[in-house]
Amino acid sequence: MSTAAFLKDFHHVATIGATANNGVDRQAATPDDARTRDWFASRVRHAGWELRVDTIGNMFGLLEWTPGAPFVVIGSHLDSQPLGGRFDGAYGVIAAMHAARTIDAEVTESGMAPRFNLAVVNWFNEEGGRFAPSVMGSSVFTGLFDREAMLNVTDLQGVSVREALAGIGYLGTDNGPEVAGYAEIHIEQGRILERESINIGLVDRSWYTQKLDIEVLGEQSHTGATAMADRHDALVAASKIILMVHDVTADFPEEALVSSVGQLTLEPNSPIVVARRVRLVADLRSGDPEVVKAARDSLLRDIDALARDHDIKVNVKDFDIRPIRRFPEAGIDLAAQVADSIGLSSRRIQTMAGHDSVAMNTMVPSIMLFIPSVDGVSHCEREFSTDADMADGLDMLTGVARQLVHGALATSEMAVAGTSAAGGVA
Amino acid sequence: MSTAAFLKDFHHVATIGATANNGVDRQAATPDDARTRDWFASRVRHAGWELRVDTIGNMFGLLEWTPGAPFVVIGSHLDSQPLGGRFDGAYGVIAAMHAARTIDAEVTESGMAPRFNLAVVNWFNEEGGRFAPSVMGSSVFTGLFDREAMLNVTDLQGVSVREALAGIGYLGTDNGPEVAGYAEIHIEQGRILERESINIGLVDRSWYTQKLDIEVLGEQSHTGATAMADRHDALVAASKIILMVHDVTADFPEEALVSSVGQLTLEPNSPIVVARRVRLVADLRSGDPEVVKAARDSLLRDIDALARDHDIKVNVKDFDIRPIRRFPEAGIDLAAQVADSIGLSSRRIQTMAGHDSVAMNTMVPSIMLFIPSVDGVSHCEREFSTDADMADGLDMLTGVARQLVHGALATSEMAVAGTSAAGGVA
Repeated sequence: MSTAAFLKDFHHVATIGATANNGVDRQAATPDDARTRDWFASRVRHAGWELRVDTIGNMFGLLEWTPGAPFVVIGSHLDSQPLGGRFDGAYGVIAAMHAARTIDAEVTESGMAPRFNLAVVNWFNEEGGRFAPSVMGSSVFTGLFDREAMLNVTDLQGVSVREALAGIGYLGTDNGPEVAGYAEIHIEQGRILERESINIGLVDRSWYTQKLDIEVLGEQSHTGATAMADRHDALVAASKIILMVHDVTADFPEEALVSSVGQLTLEPNSPIVVARRVRLVADLRSGDPEVVKAARDSLLRDIDALARDHDIKVNVKDFDIRPIRRFPEAGIDLAAQVADSIGLSSRRIQTMAGHDSVAMNTMVPSIMLFIPSVDGVSHCEREFSTDADMADGLDMLTGVARQLVHGALATSEMAVAGTSAAGGVA
Repeated sequence: MSTAAFLKDFHHVATIGATANNGVDRQAATPDDARTRDWFASRVRHAGWELRVDTIGNMFGLLEWTPGAPFVVIGSHLDSQPLGGRFDGAYGVIAAMHAARTIDAEVTESGMAPRFNLAVVNWFNEEGGRFAPSVMGSSVFTGLFDREAMLNVTDLQGVSVREALAGIGYLGTDNGPEVAGYAEIHIEQGRILERESINIGLVDRSWYTQKLDIEVLGEQSHTGATAMADRHDALVAASKIILMVHDVTADFPEEALVSSVGQLTLEPNSPIVVARRVRLVADLRSGDPEVVKAARDSLLRDIDALARDHDIKVNVKDFDIRPIRRFPEAGIDLAAQVADSIGLSSRRIQTMAGHDSVAMNTMVPSIMLFIPSVDGVSHCEREFSTDADMADGLDMLTGVARQLVHGALATSEMAVAGTSAAGGVA
């Protein structure tokens, strides 16, 4: 299969849910997410592969050369953030599809079935913008999240995951395949590969992350008639908390911690009413769990002092705690050899963002690969990676998947790291 | 008519849209607003008065004793803030209805038609919580706001005033009555009457108010993968602006200025995306226009510096500027005499909140009366006034309305103050 065919598919999918400034808006289980799903399904069927949709909306295209053998799974996600970029996730799914076509042709030509079968996957709701938490589909698949609990998660309009998936026709009834290994390729979403002019990032670990659900309870009053001294303004207190969540990063070495508030709801949200209630979600991440824990403790102390100072109640709950996950060394070595063999430079790298591969790595040996991001920006329309880098990444993923179906990682006696500390939703 | 009948009606209406903590939630043109409107309509019809609904949803009950004569109008509004109090507005409408019944009985008994007819009014959307700006119905009636522009105003869900009123069956086709004068009674929403143990406030002027529509434009990015230094977080900048809007009051004498942000919308509002755009509404009010102007200028300077500091764009627009309106001295004197005659103490007072009477006063001589508010709180479920104070206020309004229909204010050659500086929406 040609690079041109891959690029044509990639640029076609970028037109689905396209936004004015070269981004896409395909939040999970929306009509535009459904259109990329329809595209994925038609491609799978057209290739003659079996299509399965499981009960949390994950889609699998199965290439079963060896009846009954487990599957190496490759892929990523086609959903996006609101006004998100066209590369995040979609690149990995489309590259996986083309890698699978190449390997399928090789298997057919050789007449020899490999040790494992191959599946291409489109995971449900990796982004978590509409339905929190993120990395939902792969986390349910691997048993990290409870399926029923996730189906009952609602968006800000009160629509549940179950209703939304049923509404677009993708609340499936199939089981996913038995899995032998997993590989994913993704844009870096940071500046390291670009800065060092390196083709491929070999992800060795994910950052420690946690969220705080912060509820600020003041008292509703009149923005005109109530004296300033008589107010208990939940939005003023919340604004101070937002700045605390931002400023706490300065207490640690540069780039050791990222911390911010991305979601806020305000009640009653009327121009002439002092706010009664504000709900915030803070997101804290670091390569060092102790840094996140120290930042969290510092925030809780400062929030407590603020609540007393403002005579306001603030409830803080920890949730979505995700420990550091290490990817298997044998997988990193394998990927480094593949890169060498096709003339691509590579380096080990950490991921600050969550990925489906992090969930899958708790179940089976997994390999996570990055290609460079221009300017390191992501989750926005300006997100960009070059056609040349995407083509190199496709070759890389194809090489890795080829090794995996032939049993490269299955022969090593590698332990899956990080499974003792389970992720989950508190 | 008895005080008991009035209190029975008042406490009945408080059950419509009642909330868990003794408040009401009857935002403009919602089903619960419709239920109070149905109640108002049935009372008007039952009394044998003519019901009219105009093209912005204002409801009038007309007592036409003298065919062709203009009407003295008394009333207030039945809509509320979200989780608002049960007194704000509703008290004035129900008191007006019972005052009208008393005067109607007197006219019937005397057999002598007064100089003017009488109308009871329920103004549309005084609160402005769902559809901004507030004081909408009376401002359209008096020509301060454009009718078509107001019908096209939408709520946060995109529903227009026209659609919402048609949806509840209250987009009328009638004209309102020709008006000779106006009187309204309302809770103070402040602490002055309670602090001084005075029965009735005689409003002599409204505060100068203006709003600022503030749009903060940052850049969307990933809360995990984007380095802190590379972010342009619209919510962090917006939080600083919210604190500026609050803190600017400290630059002026105590209680000289109130200033706050009550409405905020955040995009994309996803837990793992740094915000692209925040829109705020700031509300500034003072008895002295120069104080508001100085606070506004100070905020614009600080916001400009902030925008440069954060490399973010901030657009600020002035809107809903309402000049100080003075109520006619002859009306204040008349009301003071009525209070004296029935043994109620009274004092002059200013209103920090907007009221329908402020709009009506630009068209006809108007009288605005307050009764005490416990603790001075309003626009919340805890808002409270006693039955005894409400009953005194009913007697007061009845006395004033009686004088007005007999031509008390029409005989004086009083000018209507404040009409040179028109209110409006920018």
